[in-house]
Amino acid sequence: MIQKLAEKIKKTHAPICVGLDPMLKFIPEHILQKAFSECGETLEGAAEAVWQYNKAIIDAVYDLIPSVKPQIAMYEQFGIEGLRVFQKTIDYCHSKDLLVIGDIKRGDIGSTSAAYAVGHLGRVTVGSHAYAPFDEDFATVNPYLGTDGIQPFIDVCKEEKKGIFVLVKTSNPSGGEFQDRCSDGRPLYEWVGEKVAEWGETHMGETYSYVGAVVGATYPEMGKVLRNIMPKSFILVPGYGAQGGKGSDLAHFFNADGLGAVVNSSRGIIAAYQQEKYREFGSSNFADASRAAVIDMIRDIDQALGTAN
Amino acid sequence: MIQKLAEKIKKTHAPICVGLDPMLKFIPEHILQKAFSECGETLEGAAEAVWQYNKAIIDAVYDLIPSVKPQIAMYEQFGIEGLRVFQKTIDYCHSKDLLVIGDIKRGDIGSTSAAYAVGHLGRVTVGSHAYAPFDEDFATVNPYLGTDGIQPFIDVCKEEKKGIFVLVKTSNPSGGEFQDRCSDGRPLYEWVGEKVAEWGETHMGETYSYVGAVVGATYPEMGKVLRNIMPKSFILVPGYGAQGGKGSDLAHFFNADGLGAVVNSSRGIIAAYQQEKYREFGSSNFADASRAAVIDMIRDIDQALGTAN
Repeated sequence: MIQKLAEKIKKTHAPICVGLDPMLKFIPEHILQKAFSECGETLEGAAEAVWQYNKAIIDAVYDLIPSVKPQIAMYEQFGIEGLRVFQKTIDYCHSKDLLVIGDIKRGDIGSTSAAYAVGHLGRVTVGSHAYAPFDEDFATVNPYLGTDGIQPFIDVCKEEKKGIFVLVKTSNPSGGEFQDRCSDGRPLYEWVGEKVAEWGETHMGETYSYVGAVVGATYPEMGKVLRNIMPKSFILVPGYGAQGGKGSDLAHFFNADGLGAVVNSSRGIIAAYQQEKYREFGSSNFADASRAAVIDMIRDIDQALGTAN
Repeated sequence: MIQKLAEKIKKTHAPICVGLDPMLKFIPEHILQKAFSECGETLEGAAEAVWQYNKAIIDAVYDLIPSVKPQIAMYEQFGIEGLRVFQKTIDYCHSKDLLVIGDIKRGDIGSTSAAYAVGHLGRVTVGSHAYAPFDEDFATVNPYLGTDGIQPFIDVCKEEKKGIFVLVKTSNPSGGEFQDRCSDGRPLYEWVGEKVAEWGETHMGETYSYVGAVVGATYPEMGKVLRNIMPKSFILVPGYGAQGGKGSDLAHFFNADGLGAVVNSSRGIIAAYQQEKYREFGSSNFADASRAAVIDMIRDIDQALGTAN
C-alpha cells in the first residue's frame, strides 16, 4: 500500500488527501432536507445526509487525488448509524481506487491495540471464517502507551501490507503542552520520531516504510527536523488551510524525491463552497467548489515545492 | 455521576469496576455454538455471542459492584455488529443501575474531540432534536494532544454531569517509554497529573472532581506520588489481576476517606472460570465463577486497605 500511495502521488502529481470530516453545518440545506424528509431528524437522517454529501464530493474529486482521510469521530458522533456510513464511505472510496487513511487515533495496551488493528486494518477470526470489518488501508495511531501499544498494529500491517501514521507532533495549538517537553536535551516529539524511525525499519516497502508519522503543517520548523529523523517515513500533514498552514510551509515535509509527505485538507475542500473564494459555485454546486479547491491546493503545493511546470 | 460513583462505592463496599472486555476465547463453547447456529460464523454471530456472555455476567454480579468498564476495542473489532452490542451492553448496565465507564481512550484536536464527546457522553443535535448515541457515564481519554483535546470533553461533562479519566500512567510494560521521560526534573506522567488536577478544578463535584486519571496498578510507587498530585481526582486503576497488580499494591491509590480509586479487573473476572482457582464451576457456570471472583476481589482490596471487618 505504501508503494501504491507513492505511485498514485506520482501519477496524480498530488501529494494530498482529502479529509472526509463531515459536520452537519458543512452540508448544504437541500441535502439535509432530503435526508430528513426520508428518514426524519434522526441519527439515521443525519447519517444519510453525511453519506449523500460524501458521495457527491468523492465523485467530484476522486480522479485528481490518491487518497482520502475520513475522521471517524465525525461519524461516531452519530452512533451506529454514523459508523455504518463511515464503513460505506470507505467501501465507496475503494470502488473509486482511492487509498483510505482511517483517522482513528486509536492506541491502547497490547491486546486491546490488537483488537483495534484487526477491526480497522486486518481481519477478525470468527470460528473458521475471517472478516475485515472496516478495512482501511492506513490508520492513525496514538503513541502515548509506547511500543507495546504500537506493535500489534505493525504486526497486522505486515500481514496485510498496510500502514500506520503515528502521532508525533500534532497541528493543534495545545499540541506542544506535552509533546514539546524536553528530556535529555530533546523535545518529546523528537523521541517519538526516533521510535517511528525504529519501528519503521521493521516494516519497509521498497523505498518508504509502512510506518509513517503525523506532523502538523502549523509547525514547519519542527517538520524539518522530523523529516531528517524519519527519512524513510511518509509524513501525514494535517493543518493545511483552515488550521492556518500555508503551501510555503510545506517544503520541509518532503524529501528530495518530491515524495515522503501527504498533505491533508478537510473543511478547506469539503466545505469550499462556504468560503468567499468559491462562493460563486453556490450550495447546489458544492461538489464543483470542492473540485476547484482541490485543483488550487495541488497548484499551491506544486509551487511551494518549486516543481510547477 | 462522580457523587453517585462515590455513594455506590460506599454502599457496595466495593471500589471496583468489572472490565467487560469480551474476547471470543473467553466465551464458553455452548454460548458460541448457540450464537453461531442462529447467526452463522459471522460478525453478527460473534456479536450475539458477546452479548449473551456479557448479559449472563452482568446478571451474576451487578448487585455487588458500582460500575463496569466496557473496552470498546473488543466490540469495534467486530465492526458495526460489535458496536451495536457495545451500545446494548451500556443500555443493559444502565437498566441494572450500574455506572458505565466507556474505555474508549479517544483524544484529538478540539473540534474532533468535541464530536467524540457528544457521541459518547453527550447529545448530538440533528435538526431540532438531540440524541445520546452511546451515553456512557464516564469515558477514558488520551492526553497526548494537550488541553484543547481535553477541554471539549470537559465542556460536555459539565452539561451532562459526567466525567472523564485521563490516561496518566498506563499499566502496560512499555507505558514508561514516553510517560517516564523526565523534563524539568519530573517525569511526563507527573506533568500530565498536574494538568489533570488543574482541569479537575474546573469541574468539581461535592468532594471529588469529574476529571479523574488512569494510573496502572502495576506502578504502585508512582501511584503514591500521583495520588498526592491529584488529591481530588478519582483514579481508575487497571492492571489488577491478570496484568500482575496485587491487592497489596493498591493502598497508595486511595485517599484516607477510603475513596478516590476504582480498581478494574477484566479477564480476572469475566474469564474466571478458565483459571485454576475457579475451575470447579465449569464452563456452564461461568457467570457464577465471575461472581465468586468479584467477591474475592472485593475481599482482597478490603484487606489491603486494612478495613476488613
